[in-house]
This record gives sequence, C-alpha cells and structure tokens, in this order.
Amino acid sequence: MSDDPPKSHGRLSIRASLQPRDLMEEPRLVKGAWIARVITLFPEAFPGTLGLSLTGKALDMGRWRLETIDLRPFGEGRHRNVDDTPAGGGAGMVLRADVVDAAFRAAGEGTPADRARWPVVYLSPRGRPFDQATARRLAACDGVTLLCGRFEGVDQRVLDRHRVEEISLGDFVLTGGEIAAQALLDATVRLLPGVLGNAASTEEESFSDGLLEHPQYTRPAVWEGQEIPAVLQSGNHAEIAKWRRAQAEELTRARRPDLWNKRRVR
Amino acid sequence: MSDDPPKSHGRLSIRASLQPRDLMEEPRLVKGAWIARVITLFPEAFPGTLGLSLTGKALDMGRWRLETIDLRPFGEGRHRNVDDTPAGGGAGMVLRADVVDAAFRAAGEGTPADRARWPVVYLSPRGRPFDQATARRLAACDGVTLLCGRFEGVDQRVLDRHRVEEISLGDFVLTGGEIAAQALLDATVRLLPGVLGNAASTEEESFSDGLLEHPQYTRPAVWEGQEIPAVLQSGNHAEIAKWRRAQAEELTRARRPDLWNKRRVR
Repeated sequence: MSDDPPKSHGRLSIRASLQPRDLMEEPRLVKGAWIARVITLFPEAFPGTLGLSLTGKALDMGRWRLETIDLRPFGEGRHRNVDDTPAGGGAGMVLRADVVDAAFRAAGEGTPADRARWPVVYLSPRGRPFDQATARRLAACDGVTLLCGRFEGVDQRVLDRHRVEEISLGDFVLTGGEIAAQALLDATVRLLPGVLGNAASTEEESFSDGLLEHPQYTRPAVWEGQEIPAVLQSGNHAEIAKWRRAQAEELTRARRPDLWNKRRVR
Repeated sequence: MSDDPPKSHGRLSIRASLQPRDLMEEPRLVKGAWIARVITLFPEAFPGTLGLSLTGKALDMGRWRLETIDLRPFGEGRHRNVDDTPAGGGAGMVLRADVVDAAFRAAGEGTPADRARWPVVYLSPRGRPFDQATARRLAACDGVTLLCGRFEGVDQRVLDRHRVEEISLGDFVLTGGEIAAQALLDATVRLLPGVLGNAASTEEESFSDGLLEHPQYTRPAVWEGQEIPAVLQSGNHAEIAKWRRAQAEELTRARRPDLWNKRRVR
C-alpha cells in the first residue's frame, strides 16, 4: 500500500502506527489460529470479559487472537471527527464512509478477500439475528473483522463497498457495538478446537435439536423440603432421557412457540 | 436474618462481608436511582464496557448504580465449591441450590419483594428472548438482580423458590452470563431518564414501529464515485420520509420476514 497511496486518503503515517495491537503480553499464537480484528472507538473495552475464563485461557494459549483497531485516528481534522449529521436530516450522527473505509483497509491487511473465509461484520440492529449456526460458521473461518457502531449508524456506501455483513445481537438497541462484539466472539471462540473442555461441550446441542434445555438439579437431594425429581435418582438412563426430553419439549412449547413451530414444520 | 440464621447455612460472617460492593469510587447516587445487582463468579468483569461512554457517564453521575456480588464465597467447604454434577448424569456442572440461594438472599437485602418492581433474572438460553420491550420494562423498575450462570445450569429448585425470570440474549450459547448481563444492562440503562442526550433518542423507534432502520448517509456527498441518494439532498421532508419508510419496509421484508409478518398480523 505504501508504494501507491490512494490520493483521497493520505493518512499512511496514521495507518502505519495503527498496526493492530496485540492484546496478549506474550504472543504465543498457535499456527492457523483464529483471528478477530475489532474496529472500535473504545479499544479499552477489549478484551474485557473475553480475557477471563475459557475465552481468556484460550487467548493466553494462542488458540485465538484479538486485535483492536482504534477508529479515532482515522478521523478528519484536528479533532479526528469520525461522524457527521445524517443526510436528509434526523437525530444522531452517522459514521463517515471515508473514515470507516480507511479502518476497513487497515483491518484487511493480510486477510483473504474471500468473505466466506474472512467475513467483515457490522454489528447493528438492522442485521440478521446472530444465532448458534452463525457462531459455527464464523468459527470455521480464518477470522473475522468486526465494526462496532456508535451513534445513529454508518454511511451505507462503505458497507456496500466492503461487502459488509450486518449481524444483530437481537431486537434491542445498545449504546454501541462493543458488547455485541464480545457476545459474538464469546459464542464463536468457545467453538474453536481445544477451547472447551468436556465440561460444556454438550450445551449447544440444546439448539442443535431446536429445543430449550431441560431443568437441571444437583446435590443436595433434598433442599428446603424440595426433592430432586425421583426419576433423576433412579439410575434408569432410558427413563431419565425420556423425562428430560419431555421437559425440554414442554418448556420449548411454553416459552418459545416460535422455536417449537419451526421444529414441527421441518 | 442475623437473629435467626437458617441452620443449614451458617455463613453469616461471609454474607456480612459480602455487602454488595459499590463500583463507583465516589458514590454520588441520584435519589431513587436505578440499581443493578449482579451475582457472578467474575466480579472483575464489571463494569467492563458499561464503565465507558454513555453508560459509564451515567454511572459516574449516579443515575444508576452497579453492585456486584461474588458468588464464590457462598460456596461449600475449603474450596468454596459452587457447583456439583447433574442429578441423573450428563456433562457439565450445575450451580447448587443452597449456594445460589445464599447469594440471592444477600442480593435481596433492602429490595422490594414485588417482582414487578425488582425482577430477579437468570440469564440463560432457556429464557424468553430479551427485546426492547423487556428493556423498557426493566428500566421502569426500581432495579434488577441478575444471576450470571456458568457451566451447565442452575438447580431448578432455587429458580422456582426465588421466582426467577429466565431471560435469553438470543439463540446462541455463551461461556457465561456476564456478557449477556452487560448487554441487558446497556440496553436498559440507556433508557433511564437523563442517560441519553438527544443524540440517540430516536434509535429505539425502529423497533417501536416493527421495522428495521433505513440506510443512513452523511458527508461527503460523493465518495469514491458514489453519491448520496438525491432525495436525501432535496430538502423535501415529505419525500425524504416516504423514501426512508419504503427503504425500511424493503429491508425488513428481506432480512426479517419474521418481524414483517408480525406487523402484517397486527
């Protein structure tokens, strides 16, 4: 890029100093490890909760890599403005196409252009809802670039130009995309090889078969006068499986008629 | 409670030292401010991203209060075990009813027993999906207690006993409830009085009318040969509103047939 800088930009020195920052103090990257590049106005939000527990251990072990790209230095002028008022009027501010473009270019360095191998994602309530199937698809990629929005949105032209996939965490509005990015990464990273022990490996099955999970119980057998259901203490594995299945079906019907109806259609 | 400790517990000294910890260095609580109490094995995950930007400013200004309750000290024995194997067998570990009960009791101190005023929430993929209406309902309460799960689940008896509402962030599996709690709190806190400026106040309208938001554009008017749609630069507010509406409808039909069909039924 430095041989032929695009005339309209000319922020090479900024971009050069913006090499994605490695959040691990002693990088030990497993060959072919999964990489997340996160474009954000709040790089200090990362790794956040992702630095703890299973995802944090996996980060330390180099099973995945988290790189933040601060959007601010790509901004315009002395104040490094990244946004402007919406064309056509309205509340809020919109992230500028040229500013986000420069960040996408920096994030794209060394990544495959094939979006099937390295999706570029904008986290927004306008996107398709994130689900376990999306987490599995992302985990099977080489890595992902995530743009965390703030304000009212992002100029549509830069989303089109970079073939950006919009993903929504759900039908609610967040102050920004950072927490959504962390949720997406947590759900994805735990599916990478070697991240989960056996401990939690069966959890996602509850979504594979389209049912919510049955109730769980553990010791003590009697707690404040309430006993664990007798069948779970029977040792009869077939009966236990049958009971759990019935409970899962009942729960799904009651709480998630949408999931339940999807199953019956299939 | 100290006059008549339940015989089966006897961790009064632990509970006494577990008074919810205030995360603000200089508490300045607005009278009647909204309170979140979060029960977690990872109190260091908080405030996390909630300490930044609008939610962070609102925390500093005392418009809401975030208290974490470490689950670990409520655990059993020298290792403070909080979990045990699932009754009836299976992978993973289940949080014990007695341990979680003690944490719920500590979290409940000084809160109204009416769940409509102070919901007690367990973040779990088995719950009802979190949405903007739930955020609005929670924002109208005095506060909320959140239990962040880990492992395979929580003993059902303690969820029943404390009339716990299960809420799911979406149809995906996280390593724990901490990021889900942060998403729920972010979406809720931004709806509290005085937290949002005018800047983002219209965002939630996109869900109020059941449509995804129209595309946004901002300066420059021409970027890399792509112009902002002419209508947005026309100054004709009626035409702009019509165009945005049509775009929002088209987007919703294409990306979210589920939302679109819900609208048509109404």
